[in-house]
Amino acid sequence: MTPPEQQESLDPADWDEMRSLGHRMVDDAIAYLIGVRERPAWQAVPEETRALFRTPAPEAPSGAAAAYRDFVQNVLPYPTGNVHPRFWGWYMGNGTVLGALADFLASVLNSNLGGGSHAANLVEEQVVNWMKDIIGLPQESSGLLVSGGSMANFVGLAVARNAKAGFDVRELGLQAAGGQLIVYASSEVHSSVQKGIELLGMGNRSLRKVPVKGNYTIDLAALEAAIGTDRQAGCRPVCVVGNAGSINTGAIDDLVGLADICKRQRLWFHIDGAIGAVAMLAPSIRPLLAGIERADSVGLDLHKWIHMPFEAGCILVRDEEAHRRTFSLKPEYLARETRGLAAGAPWFSDYGLQLSREFRALKVWMSIKEHGLARFGRMIERNVEQARHFGRLVEDAPDLELMAPIGLDIVCFRFQPGGLADAALDALNKEILMRLHEGGIAVPSYTTLNGRYCLRIAIANHRSTFEDFESLAREVRRIGRELAR
Amino acid sequence: MTPPEQQESLDPADWDEMRSLGHRMVDDAIAYLIGVRERPAWQAVPEETRALFRTPAPEAPSGAAAAYRDFVQNVLPYPTGNVHPRFWGWYMGNGTVLGALADFLASVLNSNLGGGSHAANLVEEQVVNWMKDIIGLPQESSGLLVSGGSMANFVGLAVARNAKAGFDVRELGLQAAGGQLIVYASSEVHSSVQKGIELLGMGNRSLRKVPVKGNYTIDLAALEAAIGTDRQAGCRPVCVVGNAGSINTGAIDDLVGLADICKRQRLWFHIDGAIGAVAMLAPSIRPLLAGIERADSVGLDLHKWIHMPFEAGCILVRDEEAHRRTFSLKPEYLARETRGLAAGAPWFSDYGLQLSREFRALKVWMSIKEHGLARFGRMIERNVEQARHFGRLVEDAPDLELMAPIGLDIVCFRFQPGGLADAALDALNKEILMRLHEGGIAVPSYTTLNGRYCLRIAIANHRSTFEDFESLAREVRRIGRELAR
Repeated sequence: MTPPEQQESLDPADWDEMRSLGHRMVDDAIAYLIGVRERPAWQAVPEETRALFRTPAPEAPSGAAAAYRDFVQNVLPYPTGNVHPRFWGWYMGNGTVLGALADFLASVLNSNLGGGSHAANLVEEQVVNWMKDIIGLPQESSGLLVSGGSMANFVGLAVARNAKAGFDVRELGLQAAGGQLIVYASSEVHSSVQKGIELLGMGNRSLRKVPVKGNYTIDLAALEAAIGTDRQAGCRPVCVVGNAGSINTGAIDDLVGLADICKRQRLWFHIDGAIGAVAMLAPSIRPLLAGIERADSVGLDLHKWIHMPFEAGCILVRDEEAHRRTFSLKPEYLARETRGLAAGAPWFSDYGLQLSREFRALKVWMSIKEHGLARFGRMIERNVEQARHFGRLVEDAPDLELMAPIGLDIVCFRFQPGGLADAALDALNKEILMRLHEGGIAVPSYTTLNGRYCLRIAIANHRSTFEDFESLAREVRRIGRELAR
Repeated sequence: MTPPEQQESLDPADWDEMRSLGHRMVDDAIAYLIGVRERPAWQAVPEETRALFRTPAPEAPSGAAAAYRDFVQNVLPYPTGNVHPRFWGWYMGNGTVLGALADFLASVLNSNLGGGSHAANLVEEQVVNWMKDIIGLPQESSGLLVSGGSMANFVGLAVARNAKAGFDVRELGLQAAGGQLIVYASSEVHSSVQKGIELLGMGNRSLRKVPVKGNYTIDLAALEAAIGTDRQAGCRPVCVVGNAGSINTGAIDDLVGLADICKRQRLWFHIDGAIGAVAMLAPSIRPLLAGIERADSVGLDLHKWIHMPFEAGCILVRDEEAHRRTFSLKPEYLARETRGLAAGAPWFSDYGLQLSREFRALKVWMSIKEHGLARFGRMIERNVEQARHFGRLVEDAPDLELMAPIGLDIVCFRFQPGGLADAALDALNKEILMRLHEGGIAVPSYTTLNGRYCLRIAIANHRSTFEDFESLAREVRRIGRELAR
């Protein structure tokens, strides 16, 4: 029998070499982050680099150092860009150094948080308990970290479906439904809610999109009217989804009003808080979220405004039993014990889709210890101030136009030189966006509001300065004027 | 306006300090892995340590070094244990150093693989293309990395449901189904398939568990008979799930036989290959998997036998259009462009539940370059040989009993001193397991086969030596004899 030290394995043949390589990676990463402001906010992958990604898998080893060289040359220069201080596209956080190092440690330990008696599960339990405190849900609630907002909404909707359908959905399936189950949300609801409803087998027809008011929050009267109409038509209302920060404009629905309606109508109240729920950490913003503590389930994202590296979402559910009853399955090979590794409670796999689960809790745990909650709150408040500051720059400029009320940290605007037809104005702003990206100047994204193309910035960025927004306003106007000529 | 260098952010106030801390983490991690064999395979978290995980979140910062100290003292000593050479519980890989470092790099870059034009998406595309080659699916197939086998099965089943239901499930929901949709699998199917079916709204009643033969593979005649009976009863068969390595015993269904039946019956053929699909890399094992290349979808797990740190699963789907039509949703804020960051194809979010997605492809990409495919194949072959070696040790020992045919790398056995009633024998073996865990000797897990409690080892371990299995046999017999006295 081969002695271990001579046996081929996936461990390095030379540990010292691997240690040096690890040090080099840390050095390079820190240099990369120190220099992030000096690099373009985005740049395209050149065609000759793209071609390198079309080769088949190597049969023979080339070693760790060579694999790292490929990364440094062909991947590192072409990130999505959300590490950059002038990236405000879609909705992403920057990440942090310690968050990334924690992901390394988590992968070294390589614990499986599906269940069992080991420390990583205790870390996740603590992190989830912290989230309950932040949102204002009771400690008896359940919850778990998930991949992100889409999965958080999926879990919340799954529990809502099973808890409110009125029959045993797990056993019988939706074929047994007397009438269509209905989930209500505003027309501004995130697409992940529709995706979740479709995957859960309810069908897009089960999603009732309720009109919004001028501030893009749900029209409560229209919601209650729709519920009544649906009941009369033989449908079965099950759930209302409230927005705590909508994707287009950062609008926060009247959560107290929604909680009242859900109570009156006996509906599950889920809140999509992927964008705004963590603003509970910011004392000046917290009042806008009043009512969130009355939700039956809240989805939140820590890789957005808490700047954890991808992925780190979270779902909280007030009714632990309803949550567990939706997901728990105990085949013989997963039977629980009271001693040994198979002991321990809760098993997180009883509360979500996954059985094996990575230790994403570690980066959250270490980062909250590193910074403390108050600093995260200040970062959030500064981004909101920056959104308002940029809004003032837009309003003060004769050729910029605000396209919606500013919600939290999201500003929708456009270049508006006057005298252009709608289609030409859309095309002009689209071209401005392309030039901002291609020039590496900044990364806004875009949306369409009332049929009009908008530039859109979502400022979940702990590296942005106020000057970055002055630069954005200046560059949009410069490019816009050049193009309009 | 505050200049950037004076502005509070989540970046370290002192980069040099963070660099030193990063080096220390690398040093500690490497020492931890070098010494892994000298530590217990598992140890319980002491009660005084558990208490530390019950404190509320700190408002004030304590800094990165203090957060790391907490990790080293209270988390690092109490892992799940799958890094250890004598961990063979459930089904997990060990992880690798470069895999963990790649997770660090991925989190530094913090790219979002939901979509867009940037290098990380090209890496994932390449990795998925490599997987198609390994499994033998055509390059025109689609696929993406997912959290693991549960999600891989979920995606495969979702596509199967929508492609074979015979009506527009996405729009109408399963309320519109004429009869119950039926998914077939052997009684040995993994619980994640049931969980997927339930979440997809089909209901547990839609899962038809077909009996197995003595070798724990699906009984093809019973399957085809069940399909016929269901059709006559007005149900709608949609999918057959084949096992490529069952969870209890590593059994591989007759995949050619299943492919023939699916073709004849016009059913979707999904393969749960979480355990065994990657054994396609091992020339001596590949023939056992014949037929896998005829599947409509294959789920596989790279955090199992390829030893990627959690999480790294993969789903491949032959019919790209059916895959995309199940998941793709394009709201206005995710509209695609032909230039800038919003260009690029495919967008992986069109093929799965998640919108934001972490860069899990990097560890796979770097590790395959590091080791080459052939070495992974050799590691797999050695584990299979070790299973057979341990099987011989069991058969040669008068008081050990093999409980099922050895499938791939999984051995089910028990201590059998003779003369004990069934219940006493179960209790004895359960106690042996507890003592193996609590003594830190080794981590087998357990299952129940034909009503009898078994010890079970699943050898996805690149650190195990043949001696480790001799040690296991010896220790089981030693503890067993002590207890039996």
